[in-house]
Amino acid sequence: MSLVEPAVSTPEPLQRFPVSAEPAAPAGDAVRGSVEVELALRHAGSQRVRLAWEIQGAAEAPVVLVAGGISAHRHVASSATFPERGWVQGLAAAGRALDPAHCRILAFDYVGADGRLDAPIDTADQADAVAVLLDALRIPRLQAFVGYSYGALVGLQLAARHPRRLERLVAVSGAHRAHPYAAAWRALQRRAVALGQLQCADLQGLSLARQFAMLSYRTEEEFGERFDAPPEIVNGRVRVAAEDYLDAAGAQYVARTPVTAWLRLSESIDLHRIDPAAVRVPTTVVAVEGDRLVPLSDSVALVEGLGRRGRLRVLRSPYGHDAFLKETDRIDALLRSALHNEGDAA
Amino acid sequence: MSLVEPAVSTPEPLQRFPVSAEPAAPAGDAVRGSVEVELALRHAGSQRVRLAWEIQGAAEAPVVLVAGGISAHRHVASSATFPERGWVQGLAAAGRALDPAHCRILAFDYVGADGRLDAPIDTADQADAVAVLLDALRIPRLQAFVGYSYGALVGLQLAARHPRRLERLVAVSGAHRAHPYAAAWRALQRRAVALGQLQCADLQGLSLARQFAMLSYRTEEEFGERFDAPPEIVNGRVRVAAEDYLDAAGAQYVARTPVTAWLRLSESIDLHRIDPAAVRVPTTVVAVEGDRLVPLSDSVALVEGLGRRGRLRVLRSPYGHDAFLKETDRIDALLRSALHNEGDAA
Repeated sequence: MSLVEPAVSTPEPLQRFPVSAEPAAPAGDAVRGSVEVELALRHAGSQRVRLAWEIQGAAEAPVVLVAGGISAHRHVASSATFPERGWVQGLAAAGRALDPAHCRILAFDYVGADGRLDAPIDTADQADAVAVLLDALRIPRLQAFVGYSYGALVGLQLAARHPRRLERLVAVSGAHRAHPYAAAWRALQRRAVALGQLQCADLQGLSLARQFAMLSYRTEEEFGERFDAPPEIVNGRVRVAAEDYLDAAGAQYVARTPVTAWLRLSESIDLHRIDPAAVRVPTTVVAVEGDRLVPLSDSVALVEGLGRRGRLRVLRSPYGHDAFLKETDRIDALLRSALHNEGDAA
Repeated sequence: MSLVEPAVSTPEPLQRFPVSAEPAAPAGDAVRGSVEVELALRHAGSQRVRLAWEIQGAAEAPVVLVAGGISAHRHVASSATFPERGWVQGLAAAGRALDPAHCRILAFDYVGADGRLDAPIDTADQADAVAVLLDALRIPRLQAFVGYSYGALVGLQLAARHPRRLERLVAVSGAHRAHPYAAAWRALQRRAVALGQLQCADLQGLSLARQFAMLSYRTEEEFGERFDAPPEIVNGRVRVAAEDYLDAAGAQYVARTPVTAWLRLSESIDLHRIDPAAVRVPTTVVAVEGDRLVPLSDSVALVEGLGRRGRLRVLRSPYGHDAFLKETDRIDALLRSALHNEGDAA
């Protein structure tokens, strides 16, 4: 995962992705690089940040930017060059709507994901970073921006602030604002980190925060099926069936996530607020019924605000907010329809 | 609240509530007392515990025991003798189904609520405590046991273990088992306390636990209406609209709750598991659609298991699990029907 691996430094990324001149890379091959840029942040002035990116797929093919949750990164799926599994492995593969043989798939590490920027980060800042990155890579326009969760928020900002940089947007499990209940849930996760930090137990705090987040990402339906065993009494304390799973989820997360990165990106979700009418590109909103963080009513409000440019697709999944990581076939079918449908009113 | 007020000690509570001999207390008057008993706990051997009780209402009238959530206590509603507000003030009042002019309303502090018992406590233990308390007060049989949340679990255990001690049961927002998702949620609250206890920040831990619990007691619907203001940046940190409310909820709770009491009663909910077929009295199950802790599917499973003895009433409320504290008129109407309906098959 890129947060712990040093990025391959590419001092001249532009040479690798000229607009039309370079020989085609082999299909399925991928390139990584990074670019240092000065970014004017909405809440924290001008900051020098490094944008780490990866692109895979057929040279010359249209570019789709894929952006995930706050824990996602530039490595979307395995390739010959970078064979490790990506964070959305099954959705960027041969035969899928995002097939590296037919498109180039671009992704980047969010501003703040390296933990070096300890300041409020807005989703508008991420969108500005995307525009700068596209300049650096000489990509005038994306065929599409596909955003899941936090990525959907960034995509909405991009479509509002830099509408000429994308033909269309697919916003999965994200809306025009953080819902107040979800915001409260995240604020308490940040308080868990703060409680840990009180006593130099930063990692325990982050682990607990992640465990609480897991409950918001999943549903009672899934927990009911997976963790129906009776509780045990261990060393005089009650231990419920899901605790092994939660322990593992917390430990795995703290091993790869800088505390500051998590705090600032968690905050960033709550800073997100955009007028749907300001989104100026055709947008497919994918909502998951049962998502505990993004209620269907907010997705409906977003689509209403989009007017003729918006369309809504609703999925019912026991995985709730995490459906995009789990319901590969169904999400792929929605993507195919969203990316290839010509019926959009521009 | 009785957890911080010393209970009025009544060495001989039996003299106050003989089966039929004493002169009637004035309507609306109330008596408190406590009794020390030896209780065989399911998971912690025999323990000496003090049962603190309060009863109000017309002498000679039939007795209804009212039991609430783990933070409830023996003071249900104000009376001439104890004028402070009770925890379910509006439901035990003149003109209500539970009218002190027509019934005696009994309540007690849960075993463990004083924080002196640091051991796993089962809902079966609480039911056994109720039976012992009824013996001490010479109440052979309750007209009804009305339990909300944790009180519903205790009522189900009483109806299974001591069916002759109650004519009927009303179980509101509680089922035959802790749902695995709700159990995970509570386990993480206990972890927040443990994180605080790492370095003597017990109260901060309990406060955070309570704040997390508040999210499970309420709904996104309510938060969406109350806390829709945009976030602020305070001292470089994002602060969302619900945080003032959550701060207050945490502070108020730690001021009145011993940490050990909370931990052991929270565990107790997760230890709860009962075979609905073992419940041997007519039971009205009241479920709230939108309750994040007790899914409707569990209430339905409970009622199915109760067979001819069970009936289900469903309420839709933006207050979720806390509906019983908020939807006074609607709960009262359900109580009236449950307590006075003669249609139950015994």
